[in-house]
Amino acid sequence: MATKTSKKTKQEPVILITNDDGITAPGIKALTEAVAGLGKIVVVAPDKPQSGMGHAITIGEPLRLHRAAPIVDGVECWSCSGTPVDCVKLSVDKVLHRKPDICLSGINHGANNSINVIYSGTMSAALEASIESIPSIGFSLLEFSIEADFTAAKKYVRMIVEQILKSKKINKHLCLNVNIPYVSEKLIKGIKVCHQAYAKYEEKFDERKDPHGKKYFWLTGEFVNFDKSKESDVWALKNNYVSVVPVQFDLTNYTLKKELEKTWKF
Amino acid sequence: MATKTSKKTKQEPVILITNDDGITAPGIKALTEAVAGLGKIVVVAPDKPQSGMGHAITIGEPLRLHRAAPIVDGVECWSCSGTPVDCVKLSVDKVLHRKPDICLSGINHGANNSINVIYSGTMSAALEASIESIPSIGFSLLEFSIEADFTAAKKYVRMIVEQILKSKKINKHLCLNVNIPYVSEKLIKGIKVCHQAYAKYEEKFDERKDPHGKKYFWLTGEFVNFDKSKESDVWALKNNYVSVVPVQFDLTNYTLKKELEKTWKF
Repeated sequence: MATKTSKKTKQEPVILITNDDGITAPGIKALTEAVAGLGKIVVVAPDKPQSGMGHAITIGEPLRLHRAAPIVDGVECWSCSGTPVDCVKLSVDKVLHRKPDICLSGINHGANNSINVIYSGTMSAALEASIESIPSIGFSLLEFSIEADFTAAKKYVRMIVEQILKSKKINKHLCLNVNIPYVSEKLIKGIKVCHQAYAKYEEKFDERKDPHGKKYFWLTGEFVNFDKSKESDVWALKNNYVSVVPVQFDLTNYTLKKELEKTWKF
Repeated sequence: MATKTSKKTKQEPVILITNDDGITAPGIKALTEAVAGLGKIVVVAPDKPQSGMGHAITIGEPLRLHRAAPIVDGVECWSCSGTPVDCVKLSVDKVLHRKPDICLSGINHGANNSINVIYSGTMSAALEASIESIPSIGFSLLEFSIEADFTAAKKYVRMIVEQILKSKKINKHLCLNVNIPYVSEKLIKGIKVCHQAYAKYEEKFDERKDPHGKKYFWLTGEFVNFDKSKESDVWALKNNYVSVVPVQFDLTNYTLKKELEKTWKF
């Protein structure tokens, strides 16, 4: 790590780290360790699990922000009562008092490839950063377990972050969705730039009765992939590549726009 | 309204209605009234306000679903303890037991143009429907007030829904983000197909102290538009057009994908 007095320190990038599994998750510790020495790291993460929160923001109640014990020695850490997107917004205004040079989110315990990008708090935090002109990367490991082994993941995280930081000019809206297969390092074939696979969940709610005889439902579902392309993230991960999907926040469907302009009559 | 015994009844479209302001909001009543007679309407909406919930889903706790009093005479209504996206998922599996022919969301109290599409529960419900191959439209009125006058909005809602329903073939992933200016009907110039304006919020958290002397923060922010195009929804609304932005759930940035494929070296 650069010392505080060296000339380099002034230029070292500020790296904001967040996640959606909460500040106590092993994945965010692994991410912080993976990029140690690449800049000044500040962690601002939810104080509880926030998986599936998508791009939710907290507008109906106030937010709390507390200094937390370092998850890695010497790293400034904060826990926030809000969503992953709240964490990004709040850290810029109230922790860093500036935009960081890059925002990293994860490492998520579980896949965020394909349509999961829409539901994922991890990826929504990254997308929020890119909306705010902060280049960002969300990382996910294809293993839900709290005891997941992040050894291989950390190596690829560092390679990708280094690649971005050494770029001459980083696109300020750059946002990458990186998923890492859960196999031993030897088996990973490399990094593949992909598109978001066309896939979705077939919902099946699990219907139960509470002790008072009243119905309740648990959301469950089966992931179904309709995308046969070898350019998709689902294909890449199945074939042991680390998948990288560049993501954008302009949701306009320009093809449909043209079609409507031609065919609509009022 | 078609009678239950007519032949037409069997073919009438099933219209699912939801929102993010909750089932008691005047906006969802206005939407239900606006499309009366266009099909069999079923309302499944959150039991409390869910603004800003984005594409959040409920995975950490179970969901409740209760039959609710009709918000419009004769309409089947349900309230759900979850998010707008949960409402869409749950209604397909546990209320309708089939996919509706169209899903309508709103009418939201407040604008959902430009980047708001990302944070909006109203639009996330519509987007969820389109992921599930259900054509959908989200409607928003540029007025937050609970006493907002929906008269002009209802007219445009009906025009747009009729236009879609009479199409020979509806794109199953069609998803429209419709915003309606809050001016008298005479002043509305018509309907304009647009792209999502490039705009964002400049956050400013309101810092306060609770009675125990501890800090808390309210999210506030200023909407800043960087998009000067006359094709954007912000422009259309400023010029008293109803804006219609076709929206998609493939977030892949294909331009950046090509760039990375060319320049990345590992």
